[in-house]
This record gives sequence, structure tokens and C-alpha cells, in this order.
Amino acid sequence: MSGSSFGTLFRITTWGETHGKAVGVVIDGCPAGLMLQEEDIQKYLDRRKPGQSKYTTKRQESDCVEILSGVFEGKTTGTPISLIVWNQDQRSKDYSNIMDKYRPGHADYTFDKKYGFRDYRGGGRSSGRETIGRVAGGAVACKVLEQMGISVFAYTKSIGHIEISKDRFEKEERDNNPLSMPDRKAFEQAKHYVDELMERLDSAGGIVECVVKGMPAGVGEPVFDKLNANLAKAICSIGAVKGFEIGDGFLATKSSGSVNNDSFVKKEDGTVGKATNHAGGILGGISDGSDIILRAGFKPTPSIAQKQHTVNVQGEEVDMVIKGRHDPLIVPRAVVVVETMTAIALLDALLCNMTAKLDVIRDFYDRNR
Amino acid sequence: MSGSSFGTLFRITTWGETHGKAVGVVIDGCPAGLMLQEEDIQKYLDRRKPGQSKYTTKRQESDCVEILSGVFEGKTTGTPISLIVWNQDQRSKDYSNIMDKYRPGHADYTFDKKYGFRDYRGGGRSSGRETIGRVAGGAVACKVLEQMGISVFAYTKSIGHIEISKDRFEKEERDNNPLSMPDRKAFEQAKHYVDELMERLDSAGGIVECVVKGMPAGVGEPVFDKLNANLAKAICSIGAVKGFEIGDGFLATKSSGSVNNDSFVKKEDGTVGKATNHAGGILGGISDGSDIILRAGFKPTPSIAQKQHTVNVQGEEVDMVIKGRHDPLIVPRAVVVVETMTAIALLDALLCNMTAKLDVIRDFYDRNR
Amino acid sequence: MSGSSFGTLFRITTWGETHGKAVGVVIDGCPAGLMLQEEDIQKYLDRRKPGQSKYTTKRQESDCVEILSGVFEGKTTGTPISLIVWNQDQRSKDYSNIMDKYRPGHADYTFDKKYGFRDYRGGGRSSGRETIGRVAGGAVACKVLEQMGISVFAYTKSIGHIEISKDRFEKEERDNNPLSMPDRKAFEQAKHYVDELMERLDSAGGIVECVVKGMPAGVGEPVFDKLNANLAKAICSIGAVKGFEIGDGFLATKSSGSVNNDSFVKKEDGTVGKATNHAGGILGGISDGSDIILRAGFKPTPSIAQKQHTVNVQGEEVDMVIKGRHDPLIVPRAVVVVETMTAIALLDALLCNMTAKLDVIRDFYDRNR
Amino acid sequence: MSGSSFGTLFRITTWGETHGKAVGVVIDGCPAGLMLQEEDIQKYLDRRKPGQSKYTTKRQESDCVEILSGVFEGKTTGTPISLIVWNQDQRSKDYSNIMDKYRPGHADYTFDKKYGFRDYRGGGRSSGRETIGRVAGGAVACKVLEQMGISVFAYTKSIGHIEISKDRFEKEERDNNPLSMPDRKAFEQAKHYVDELMERLDSAGGIVECVVKGMPAGVGEPVFDKLNANLAKAICSIGAVKGFEIGDGFLATKSSGSVNNDSFVKKEDGTVGKATNHAGGILGGISDGSDIILRAGFKPTPSIAQKQHTVNVQGEEVDMVIKGRHDPLIVPRAVVVVETMTAIALLDALLCNMTAKLDVIRDFYDRNR
Repeated sequence: MSGSSFGTLFRITTWGETHGKAVGVVIDGCPAGLMLQEEDIQKYLDRRKPGQSKYTTKRQESDCVEILSGVFEGKTTGTPISLIVWNQDQRSKDYSNIMDKYRPGHADYTFDKKYGFRDYRGGGRSSGRETIGRVAGGAVACKVLEQMGISVFAYTKSIGHIEISKDRFEKEERDNNPLSMPDRKAFEQAKHYVDELMERLDSAGGIVECVVKGMPAGVGEPVFDKLNANLAKAICSIGAVKGFEIGDGFLATKSSGSVNNDSFVKKEDGTVGKATNHAGGILGGISDGSDIILRAGFKPTPSIAQKQHTVNVQGEEVDMVIKGRHDPLIVPRAVVVVETMTAIALLDALLCNMTAKLDVIRDFYDRNR
Repeated sequence: MSGSSFGTLFRITTWGETHGKAVGVVIDGCPAGLMLQEEDIQKYLDRRKPGQSKYTTKRQESDCVEILSGVFEGKTTGTPISLIVWNQDQRSKDYSNIMDKYRPGHADYTFDKKYGFRDYRGGGRSSGRETIGRVAGGAVACKVLEQMGISVFAYTKSIGHIEISKDRFEKEERDNNPLSMPDRKAFEQAKHYVDELMERLDSAGGIVECVVKGMPAGVGEPVFDKLNANLAKAICSIGAVKGFEIGDGFLATKSSGSVNNDSFVKKEDGTVGKATNHAGGILGGISDGSDIILRAGFKPTPSIAQKQHTVNVQGEEVDMVIKGRHDPLIVPRAVVVVETMTAIALLDALLCNMTAKLDVIRDFYDRNR
Repeated sequence: MSGSSFGTLFRITTWGETHGKAVGVVIDGCPAGLMLQEEDIQKYLDRRKPGQSKYTTKRQESDCVEILSGVFEGKTTGTPISLIVWNQDQRSKDYSNIMDKYRPGHADYTFDKKYGFRDYRGGGRSSGRETIGRVAGGAVACKVLEQMGISVFAYTKSIGHIEISKDRFEKEERDNNPLSMPDRKAFEQAKHYVDELMERLDSAGGIVECVVKGMPAGVGEPVFDKLNANLAKAICSIGAVKGFEIGDGFLATKSSGSVNNDSFVKKEDGTVGKATNHAGGILGGISDGSDIILRAGFKPTPSIAQKQHTVNVQGEEVDMVIKGRHDPLIVPRAVVVVETMTAIALLDALLCNMTAKLDVIRDFYDRNR
Repeated sequence: MSGSSFGTLFRITTWGETHGKAVGVVIDGCPAGLMLQEEDIQKYLDRRKPGQSKYTTKRQESDCVEILSGVFEGKTTGTPISLIVWNQDQRSKDYSNIMDKYRPGHADYTFDKKYGFRDYRGGGRSSGRETIGRVAGGAVACKVLEQMGISVFAYTKSIGHIEISKDRFEKEERDNNPLSMPDRKAFEQAKHYVDELMERLDSAGGIVECVVKGMPAGVGEPVFDKLNANLAKAICSIGAVKGFEIGDGFLATKSSGSVNNDSFVKKEDGTVGKATNHAGGILGGISDGSDIILRAGFKPTPSIAQKQHTVNVQGEEVDMVIKGRHDPLIVPRAVVVVETMTAIALLDALLCNMTAKLDVIRDFYDRNR
């Protein structure tokens, strides 16, 4: 089954294992005429790069991206864009002890059941390193969205029970602290919380929130390919995500219709807007022109240095200790993954939406004969 | 854009508007040899049928399903199964007042932006009546799963802030009360809560939980088509869903790795199991053999009889009152929709998974020459 | 496996068996705003209707199409268009003798091998009646193309070795004779040829040619979804087709580059054209603005009234005589099937092509905010 | 639009331009457990490598393939297999003269119309070098088929009007002559024919035939995904293909039902066979257990060294001479492309077919709990 692709008209196909030669992505369906160079992609990859603080794995990787195809004289040609990142610091030795034991919270056991065996080096394809292809592909989507006046901005909303406050929200602060929290005070508290967990050889979870500004109204399909449904799939396909919300999310289940309904209003520029945004920018699966707001809940990193109880490939109960270099929490590095997967789902929907009206199609071909 | 289909190998395509002639579904890819008759499907449709209590719309529909193709001598033939339900009580007159006003919380405005105009009768395609095709299609998926020893059971977990209790959980109670709560006491409280809201011409939201038993380990694809990602899309494509969780969901974000990791254990029958199930039955996107547990958060019904502020198609601010017959809460009738959409996503994954190993494929064709 | 759908953005899903209750199609992705009524579709269905001459099966079917969804106030809404044709003259009795014997040239044996059993009534899903869904769906595609100034016109090019002549080609003549040949003299000869075969209880094959005028240049995808590749699939998916050609087809294999290359020229209106059209309107998988010309080769009808040698479901060699009502040749009724499948593949490509250039996308959303 | 992928469960995605850094393919959905090394793929690539005789372009490329992912300890893991071939002899200078002129018979003009501009270096993505990804991906498909006892063998059937003879057919001879003709005498004649054309700076076309042995009966989908329809798309997506046939192809249009029908017979081993094979191994879109036989008609190479008349990007009529290194005929190097594309379409169909029967699915999961 070919499950390594995402998207209909703008589609990424990722490949590669954490301890293989390289990881990469093929982007198919990127419109022609986008100015694109490696720096555009590199800046996104740098945000998920390991080894940048004590809160991320110490694995050393420069994660330099190379464009192999699809760009000519600085512009995308409309043909597939192949991107590659070579693996450098593979250190397979670290993982020899997990060869025949199933790490709790990991996909070792389920891969063995599905495929009959697995690449046991660092999780192989189920490693977080798989997200490099997503981020590289999504960086291109982000650049297209930018050209259309659409911005996608994600950040750490909470770590454990420490949550950022709306009152203290500062966009720039996100890139000033290693936990990607746009609230200095929350960061200080979260840092304390994570430090304590690290001392106990334990790990933390958290929530990433993503806000999209400038999204035009009328985008998304009304039934199975609702914009929120495609976003849900995009986000829940990221490893370690256990929950997804749009707008008020689960809080809306406790609200009432009279409160939760967003009144439509006439905006100053004469266009239609909404007085509130409980819906998170999507109504009936179609964007309504307000900000799109979504959240992804990440479980705590399963790789912890404590002794754990498990079963080996022979089916015997055993104890195990996972060595190697691991992130005490996934959330800060996942921020850019949420951002780029959101961008991919949005861009795909924007492209699919262009054929909704007959007169638009007719006009296009009248002008393009 | 053709967004009315769901699934890869087992695929449903739904069609129909709430005030059109009929609604229906084409099921493509159902394996040959399943005993199937209309009763198998009807019992699922009856669970979402309107007019069954004061908590559901008073619209009168018998919602009788008819099998038009794909079944011969009582068995599925492997070719498309076409199912139709004729609309009876259409009463278009009720909706004349919403023709030129955008109902808050509904898709009226977004449909107009996308398509240039809309079928304004009762929401047209964006009506909850669209779920008939899902339920009919999913009833067939449920029957296939049943044959494989897999059961899917959904129920109301909460309405507003009233939640069922694990200690009082009684499976059979679900079908004894009009709110589909498997906890008598919680039902009584919820009833009280909803009655009060109805008096105030307001509406309620809630959470549906779904538990899958008997799912084999090793099913799901490791990257974009993670079993949980496809379930997320299936569930979030249901109208009014604002949140999705698998296993511990957002609660896991507050846990730590040492607590949240499920230890593998050797079960009495010698196979591998887990001591706990925080993961909700899926690891790395692939089923682990434990129960799959998921939750869908529904917003309060947007159709309320209170006067609401909005904008009309000319872009002017106006007040409006929605007449017609509406559910004070969506949750009880959504239970069977969650159940059937879950079944469709699972069955599709089970089929896609059959080609994971070379030796299985070879064996199959050796035996089938 | 869900193989009953065709198309990416404009997608049809067909269903139904020749002796079931009905046959039909769901059209998903039809742009909103197309004026559409049943007559638009009926006129295409009437061209493939049985019982119109002695050259078609005597089965009596009015083949009246009903629109069940997707059209509101005379216009398509952008949501799925469900079309149904009820079967009337089913006469299952005629087919009782083929229940346990494999008809040569038919799919009886292969269905049994694939699915384990089959609907033996008249071929079930493998009957030519399956094409009703294609024609109904394609009629809608034709109407969209018409709005864009694109016409699709198919006709019988040859029956057996009798071929129409370019010199005698008269477009209107196609609809004046029961063999759909746009050449009166060739029709007379072909009539003679078929009459002789019918006397010997035998059947004939032939070639359908299809010409598309008004196709804009630049449509089609350069690699696997070449316009000609999608047309090849569309055409070869029609039962009884054994060959496909585009432009000069197999004749080109005997030509040389200097002859087969079409020189580009400047047309009177200043646009680019071609001096010749050996290519048949497609270069590198993308339309070049010239007429698209394709051909489909149909085998002789396999149902003949002669005694034939075969094998029964027990695997024993037996003789059989096929009773029932059959076409002595498929070609005349297949003309409209080729025409409509061509239209579907073209329209889908036209829609998919709209996102090829970044500036077009940007302009569209600038204008649609 | 993402048109660079082919296949449903076994899917290849190709990328790369002839004068870019590299070309490659991602194979997604290859079953786990296949022994695979670079030599398995290299031997197929070597058959399409340029510079091997005077009948192929003089471009020097070693075309060495590298496996970047998806193989662990010599076996496929079930995850994507990424293959890369670096371009070496790019010589962009040769192509400077075609930068602003549209080569007749090439995709220069159509790419410009579609994308607004093009990579003019050697045709960019529309070059024959695009087939490297197909051949590399198809080599893996061939190896899987081999494991299942299925062989795919293609060869040159004709060049111009010189055709091989059944009586002189020698399988091994195919690899002994540079025109890939399995008939020594036909090769000598064809050689003479091509030599003459080359002297006149002209080029030749021809037909490739492909025979599949060992294909099990019952594979393929009955409607749009007929095995022959998918093969038609696979083959017609190869550049320069203008015609496709299965079995007797266009010849069948001149036959009669009594002759063209293949009688079923009981084979010596008790299974069902056919007395003849006019059908080419497929009935109703599903394999019948006989050899699958198909043909692809290739036009003459459009790149010829003669002066040609055309139009430039400014729309003015001009003369042009194409310099550079080109094949006087495409056919010999296309043989392996036809072979591998056939293998991909067959393997995909074999995988999709595994879920046709309920009892097979049930058995599989009973055994895999």
C-alpha cells in the first residue's frame, strides 16, 4: 500500500529512514513560476534541526537540503521538485540493544506485526526524522501561500499543564526560547517543569497551536474533504499526535448554540465577517474568511532513559533501558512540522477549489487560447 | 473537485440533498461473498432516523433503504452496491425565510462563496441528512468487520459538562434512552440540562466515544495514512465535529513518558499484549491489538429558534429567526455516524494492509492458480 | 478494490447490473452553474438505446434518465449529480442456459475466478448495459465542453474491412443510418457485409473514430497523466475495445521523422498552429491546439447464436448455444460511448490543468476575496 | 496537478530533468521481504543506457543506480524505496539553439503553453531520460513478479515496415542485436532500412510487443480499471507511443465472432484454458490465465538533423536545425520501458485483486492474529 504521499493536486511523497543514507521528499503539483532556492527551504529545516538546546536530541545533523529537480533558472517549472537531506551522524551502535526488544510507546512491535520484520536502527522509518520530508515539502507550500497573502504561524501553546496566556502573547518570543513558547513567563515555568522531568529521566507532552491569517473564504469541499477533515488528517499523521481541535474544539461541546454561533457582520470594507470566531475559520468544511485556528496534542516522548518493562521478539517479558540521544519533549521541534503540514493541506485545498465554478473555468480558457 | 468519496480500496461515494428527491451512496470495493440484505442496513439507519424523541427533529422520514445493485442471490458480488433512501417529508416552505440570509454556524455563506449560489432548502447538501449515505455505507462495513470478529461500539460520552462514569457504564443502557448514554444516571442529568436549554430555545453539544474490539495488530500505514490519521479524517468530516482524540488524547499532553508509555506484556494465550492502553490501540499509526478508542467532540446545533444577528446575501446586517424542525443536540443521532465512519476507515485499512508482505501475496496466488 | 470510478477532479462512479433494478452514475466534481436538465442527458442515452434497428439487440428499454441530486433551479450546484435509469425489460429467463457454462469471449470465467461466483443474468455487471452510466456522465461533460467551445464528434470509421472515405465524409449522414457511418456508400457496403454475417449467425467488429475541435493548447500532464494516456485508459476501459490510436497511430510506426513531424506555422490570427496533424493534437502528452483525433478498435460481438465449444463451471468441455437478444455488432451503439468517455477524460484534464501556473492561482484568489 | 505518479497500491513517483542534477523514482507500496540489491535494477537500466551502438544517442552516461532507502539487510522493508541516478554528461551547450524555437514533434510549444515557460535544456522533463525512473521502478516490479512465477518479455516487433516472423522467432537473439529484434533476418533488413534513413538525416518508428507468461486468471477490475485499460495507460504514457493493442488488436475489428472467440478447453492438468488466444489473455478486463500479449506503436524520433520549418517563441516562422546527439529510432531502447511499465501495471493489479473475496480476507486475518 502506497501510503507515503499526501495531497491531491499539491502532493508530497516522502522517503527515508533515520539511519539510512538520506531522507527526502518529492513535491508534485507545485505551480510553475515560483521563485525558489534552497535557502527558502533550509530556514524551515533549521527550525526542526536537532542539537540546538538541551531540550532536543544531541544527534549532530546539519540537515542541509539540496534541490535535485523541478527548478530552472531560479523558478519552479511545474514538474516534480525532488529534495534530499543526507544523513550524517547515524551512530547505529547506540541502538543495538533495541534490536530484539519492543520499546514501549514506539512502533517496533506494530512494524514487526505488519511487515514481518523491521529496520530496528533508531526506529527506521517511524523515527521523527521522517518529518524532514514533510517540513521540506511544506516549506515550498508556505512560500506559495505567502505569495497569496496567507501566513501560517504555529507555536507551543502548552507543555504539561503550563499554558501560554493570551495577555502575554508575543509573537517574536516564540523564536527566542528553546521551547517555542510565545510567552516569556510561561516558558520560564515550562522550563522548570521539563528540567524536573529530565532529572527523573522522564519526558513531557504538550499542545501546538497554529493560526492561519489571510485565508480566502470559500475553500474546502463540503463532505469528506472538508478543510478541517483534511487538516485533521495532515496533523494526526504526525507521529505522537493524540488529539486535534479546530476553533474552540472540545470546549465547544460544553457551550450552547446561542454562545457558540458566530454572528455574521458587515466589515468596514463592506465584506462579510464574523463578530466572533468560535468556529476557527471553517463552516461546513469550507473556509469562512476568518483566521483558521487549530491545535495538535502531542504525547510525551516515548523514549525515556528509565528502565521499562516490555516484551522481546521471542515474546518473553524483559526489562530494557533505551540508550541513545532523545528529545525530552517533542513539542518545540514539532511546531514547524504542524506549520508545514497545515500549509500543505491548505494549499492543496486552494488548488482543488479553483474548479468549483463554471464561469471561472470558462473565463480561464477564454483568456488562455 | 470530487470530494464526495471516502476510502481507497473500500470506498463510499455519497450524494443527495435534504430537500431533493433522495439521498444515497455507492459502495465500491466491498468484497464478494458477504450475505447482505436491506435489514442489515436498515437497523443502522433506524438509529439516526429523525422524529424518535423530543430530542430529535420532528421531521417525519421512514428512511427506508433500497439496494439497487451489487447483491445477487443474497450475496455481494464484488461490484458496486448502490443504496437509495427517498426523501418524503420535504416541506420546503419552512425554509423560505433563510433563502437570502446567512444562518450563523451554518454553511450558507461559505457555499455561496465557493459555488456562487446554493440550494438554500434546509442546507441542501450541508444538511445532517447527508450522513444517511455514510451510515448506509458504514453498515455494510460493520457487517464485514463483524464477520472478522471486530466490533465497533459508539455512545454518548458527555453532553455539555455531564459525563458518563466508568463505574456506571452499562452497554445496553445506550439503546434505552434517547440521548444514547450508557449510564442511566448521567442520562437523567443530561436530560435535565438539555430540557433547560430547549426552554431557552438554545442547543447543546457533547462528545461521542467509540470503542473497537477485536482489531488485529499490524494494520495501518506508517506515514500519512496512519490508522489514526485516517480515523481523524473520517470523524472530522462529520458535520459539527470540532475535535478528535485517540486513546488518552489531549490528556496525554499533561502526562509524562513513564506514565503514558504502555508496557508490553505476555498474555495468557502467549501472544503480546499491553498492560495499559493510553495509546488507544495504535502505535506509530499501526494497530497494536488493543482496543481502539477514539472520541469526537460535537458543537451545539447551530439551528436555534432564538433571534440571531447576521448578514443577508446583499451584505446587509439583519436579524433572523430560523423556523423549521431542528435537533436541540446532534450528539445522540451522531453516535451511529461515528460508529459507521469508524468502521469504514478500519475496513479500508484492513484491506490495504493485505499486501504488506511478499510471502502472503505469493501464497495467495500459489493457492489461486 | 474500488475500480468503478474514473477521473480526478471530474469523476464518475457507475453502478448497476443489466438484470438488476437499475443502472446509474454519480458525477462528482461537476462545476457549479451549468444549466442542466434531463433532456441534455437523454439525447445521448437515446443514441445508445437498444431496439432501434435490426443491428441492435431487440431488448426493449426506454432508458429514461432521472436526475436525483446536484441540480437546483435548473443549475448544477457543484455537489454530486446522481443519475438513475431503471431497467424494464429484464427477461432473466432467457439467460438460464448460461448459468453454468462459460460463454467464449465473455467475462463469465474471469468473474468466477476473481470473485468466486457471478451474477450470471446477462453478464451482470460486465454487460454492455454498464455503459449507460458512462454515457449519462459523459453527457454532462459534453455539455460543459460545449460551453467552452469544445466539440467531440465520434462516428463509425470502419466495419470489418469496409472503411469510410475522407472524400465522401458527411457529418450529418452519421445520424441517418443505423451503422453511424458518415459516408452513405460505405454504409451500404457495410450493411451488406453485416447482413451476410447475421445470416451465418455471426458478428462483426469495427473502428470508431473521434474528433475533438476547439481544444485549447497546453492541457494534459507531461508524464503518467499524459492527455493521450488518460484517453487511452478511458477508451480501453470500454468493453470489447482491443486497440487504441492517437493521430496517425500505428501508421506512424512506418513513417519517418521528416514526414511525421508537424511543422509549426503562424496562423492568420497570429497564433501558433501546425501545418499538418500527424500527432493528433497532442505533443508530449499535452494538447497542441490542433484537433484531437483518436480511434478505438472493437472486436466482433462475442455473443453469437452459433453452437460454440466451451467449458462449464465443473470444468467439463461442453457445447453451448447462446439464446437471447444480442447486437450483431457493437460499433454503432459504441459511438456515443467513445464520444462521452473522451469528453470525460478531456474535461478532467481541463480542470486539472487550471493550477499549472502560480500567477493564475494568485489572480484568481485576488479577485475572489 | 500531481501527475508524476502511477499505480494504486504499488505506486512509482518519478522526478528529474535530462540536464538537471539527477533523475530518480520513489517506489511506494513494494511488499516487505523482497531480496533487493542495486544489481537487480542496474541490469534493466543497462538495457536502456545510451551510447551502446550507432543506433542510440552518443551521450555518455553510466546510469548507475543507487538505493537510498527502503532496503534493510538486503530486503525491502515495505517503506518507500528511493532510487537515484546522477546525470553526468549534461553538455547544455548543445541545446542553446533550441532555446527560443519550438522543435516540431516535441513538447517545447505545449510546455510553454501549459506552464508559461520551460526548461529548454534537452527537453527538460519531456526528454526520454524521464524513463529512467520508470525502468528503475519497474525493475523492482519485475523482481516481485518473478518471485510469483510471472515473466514479462518485450522485443522489437517491427521497424518501419520490416516485421519479425513467428517462424524465425528466437528469444535470445533479442539481446544479440542493437535493434532488439528476436529474428536475425528481420534485424538485418531493419538495419539496412535504418542505415538509409540515417544517411538522409531521417529517423524511424516501430512496434514493440510484450508477452507475459504465468499470469494467474482472475486479476483486473471489471469497469474502469480493466487490466487492459491500466496497461493502455501505462504504455501510452511512454513518450512517442501513438498506438496500443491487446491480443489481436485492430486486426480483430476485421474478424468475425465465430473466429475471434476463443473456445474454453480443459487443459491436461484439469484446469481451464483456451484453444486460441485472440483476446491476448484478458476477458472483460480480467486476466484469463493465457499469455497477455500487447503492442506499443512508436512514432519516428522527432529529433532529426535535417533543416525543419517551425515557429519561435515570438511567434515568427523560422527554420531550425537541431544539433546534439539523438537516437535515429526510439524503439530498441523503448523495449525495456514497455517491459517495466507492463510489470508495474500488472503488479499493481495483482495487489489490488487480493481483496476481492471475503473469505480470503477473513482467512488472512484469522491466520495473522
